[in-house]
Amino acid sequence: MKNDLLLRALKGEKLERPPVWMMRQAGRYLPDYMKLKEKYSFFERCRQPELSAAITLQPVDQVGVDAAIIFSDILVVPQAMGLEVQMVEGRGPYLPDPIQQDKDLERLRIPDVDESLGYVFDALRLTKQMLNGRAPLIGFAGSPWTLLCYMVQGKGSKTFDEAKAFCFTQPQTAHRLLQMITDATIAYLKGQVRAGADVVQLFDSWGGLLSPADFEEFSLQYMRQILHALKGETLTVLFAKGAWFALEQMSETGADALGIDWCITPKIARQFAGNRITLQGNFDPARLLGPIPAIQKGVKDMIDAFGTERYIANLGHGILPNVPVDHARAFVDAVKNYSRVAQ
Amino acid sequence: MKNDLLLRALKGEKLERPPVWMMRQAGRYLPDYMKLKEKYSFFERCRQPELSAAITLQPVDQVGVDAAIIFSDILVVPQAMGLEVQMVEGRGPYLPDPIQQDKDLERLRIPDVDESLGYVFDALRLTKQMLNGRAPLIGFAGSPWTLLCYMVQGKGSKTFDEAKAFCFTQPQTAHRLLQMITDATIAYLKGQVRAGADVVQLFDSWGGLLSPADFEEFSLQYMRQILHALKGETLTVLFAKGAWFALEQMSETGADALGIDWCITPKIARQFAGNRITLQGNFDPARLLGPIPAIQKGVKDMIDAFGTERYIANLGHGILPNVPVDHARAFVDAVKNYSRVAQ
Repeated sequence: MKNDLLLRALKGEKLERPPVWMMRQAGRYLPDYMKLKEKYSFFERCRQPELSAAITLQPVDQVGVDAAIIFSDILVVPQAMGLEVQMVEGRGPYLPDPIQQDKDLERLRIPDVDESLGYVFDALRLTKQMLNGRAPLIGFAGSPWTLLCYMVQGKGSKTFDEAKAFCFTQPQTAHRLLQMITDATIAYLKGQVRAGADVVQLFDSWGGLLSPADFEEFSLQYMRQILHALKGETLTVLFAKGAWFALEQMSETGADALGIDWCITPKIARQFAGNRITLQGNFDPARLLGPIPAIQKGVKDMIDAFGTERYIANLGHGILPNVPVDHARAFVDAVKNYSRVAQ
Repeated sequence: MKNDLLLRALKGEKLERPPVWMMRQAGRYLPDYMKLKEKYSFFERCRQPELSAAITLQPVDQVGVDAAIIFSDILVVPQAMGLEVQMVEGRGPYLPDPIQQDKDLERLRIPDVDESLGYVFDALRLTKQMLNGRAPLIGFAGSPWTLLCYMVQGKGSKTFDEAKAFCFTQPQTAHRLLQMITDATIAYLKGQVRAGADVVQLFDSWGGLLSPADFEEFSLQYMRQILHALKGETLTVLFAKGAWFALEQMSETGADALGIDWCITPKIARQFAGNRITLQGNFDPARLLGPIPAIQKGVKDMIDAFGTERYIANLGHGILPNVPVDHARAFVDAVKNYSRVAQ
């Protein structure tokens, strides 16, 4: 591999500068993505390997990131489990027939991933081939708790109170559902590794909506199962947005890196997570809307604080759709130029 | 005053059980509130002192909380400063003509609070009289940063990225606006104290969307000004949702108490905030959707962890509209019965 910085950062090797990529880097801020978005529906873009691969490569070619992350969506898993998922333009995901009670679980299945998610594996294989060693390829999945949020609430929410009420009033059913999602996710991520993913990231987008005790009960214990199942098979990143309170516990799951959002200083994040795990983050995505000199200064301050080892430069959450491409590029370039700036 | 538990908790006096109230306790989960909501628009309910007072008293009479908080809205301040604010049913606030650049500040004024917000003071006076010492009366205001979010973004948002972009690209204008809001808020809260508020709470609903450095720059320094201006004139509570990273700094603002959300353990919150300040919170509002025995156990665990001194039992955010009234009452009763349970 010509650029294996990401893999070396995950293994804790000594590096001159950290690798850099951006969550949601294949997305709406890129004009070429918007062209494909006009022609193909969201799930067409996910399901046609040529489209998914082309979108995945755009930020590698056009912004210069050090890693590709397969273009897909966390909700392909609930779909493969038998739930209908619609992507409503400008409104986000909509599941018309969500899970509400125990008998609804009968509608779900643990999917044969090669059959129902084979299109993701095809996209990974094709992307890997097209990447041709230019950068590592990241696969991903949503955490069981985050998927439960959508499967029960049926759509996005600020509080996911219906999903939480489901867990609090029907804990046995919730745990059965979480275990089903966990089993499906393990099979799915193993399939991604077989298809060529060099790294997989687990996204717990809504873990930070839970109290520390509920996070352990409804989210972390299932992510731990997934990470244990992947141990030795691939490199893993765990990103639980907002779940700063569990950084220490998450550092003990076997994940090779922890993603952190921007609402924590690098120093405190390192204190909580300990010195042995790689950290990934944590630039405020909204800061990419600011002027380029401020982005450059922000990146320098961030790497000064994290250091160049056991660190992956990234945003603290997904890139915003209204970020100018040259601001995204300025972010990436600032990381790449770091060692020079530092001298 | 017949029930001054809240005031004594804020002063750090020794208590047998903590006082209890709930953020948004006068609201949509109460059937009697819904009856008034059907007949009067949101701002009618805020502007007619008889309506505001009646709504304020409902949870005192019907749920038994230890404090009344005046029924109003944080957006009355931008309104008084000259911005149009609409409350769109089911969609939240909408400001059709938001602040976007420096010259927009010319449309704003530091209001004569007696003239433009006198209806809030009238409501406080009337409520105080109707309360007749049954419980302390809490006034409130939004933090300058949180008000800027709405004044710039023009509506609610998950990320308030337009408000942040405004601060990052036009910091001087942002600081001028924040200072104007700060000056208006100081006058407004002093007016509330003159009108009978025993305590005032400052709500920084969106402080937790900022990085620690940006929180200091765009939020905390202005809240500090407000709290300093009120020092010695009343008791104060500062609630910055999600801003756990600044609990230590907030404990040094002169606030008598800090509100904390549910995404932190009582132990860690106390460690960050130190031993000299009262803490308020931090029951997950969604837990009130769960069964009553679980609510009772949760309350007991919470008070066991916080202790009965320098502590005010509350939710970690506003009560959800779909909470059954008897669940809200179970929460309040569990706090009131605490000393007995503990023996």
